[in-house]
Amino acid sequence: LAPASGISDFGVSHVTLEPGAWSSQRHWHEGEDEFVVILSGEAVLVDDSGETVMCPGDVAAFPKGDGNGHVLQNRSDAACVFIAVGRPAETDCHYPDIDMHLAAGEGFRRKDGGTL
Amino acid sequence: LAPASGISDFGVSHVTLEPGAWSSQRHWHEGEDEFVVILSGEAVLVDDSGETVMCPGDVAAFPKGDGNGHVLQNRSDAACVFIAVGRPAETDCHYPDIDMHLAAGEGFRRKDGGTL
Repeated sequence: LAPASGISDFGVSHVTLEPGAWSSQRHWHEGEDEFVVILSGEAVLVDDSGETVMCPGDVAAFPKGDGNGHVLQNRSDAACVFIAVGRPAETDCHYPDIDMHLAAGEGFRRKDGGTL
Repeated sequence: LAPASGISDFGVSHVTLEPGAWSSQRHWHEGEDEFVVILSGEAVLVDDSGETVMCPGDVAAFPKGDGNGHVLQNRSDAACVFIAVGRPAETDCHYPDIDMHLAAGEGFRRKDGGTL
């Protein structure tokens, strides 16, 4: 939404997570905070703390560099709509569950640096 | 919410606007974008475009320096809850409807620079 609305201090995404969909693989960013607000439906936040059901009005913050990989999973049979706020990812992103790593300026690689 | 959650790239406020309350006087920032998401209840966005009723799930962006003073007014008889995202205000803030101006580093003044 940010480009469409003329703001640039941070990015904003209006996301519809269909039934069964995941927002991403579980991940954390070295240098960018993230913040989400659930608008409708229901999602399960999966991170190192376990699983947390999020409902409309619930918010979650993912501080940069905390090492706690997170993902939103829609396990319901209805769409889940949420707002995500963050800054453009310019630092490494870590994916604890899979053999993938986002290296700043280099794109996605295997954890040993090999190509995907 | 940002200090409590450990994020610092941007600020996040969870605001309850009681019936009859205004989020602010109508204002615009020279150097900070703002973004709001309505979670519950209803508010009237008043800006140079007129009046726009905002309902849960509605979002609005206020680009820095656009000169379009804005305010949320709760004219209903129920509380309105919204999330506001922005950065710490470090630049001048303009209040078109009243004799007040926020000068960076100097605090609130009258438009002629006099003390309030």
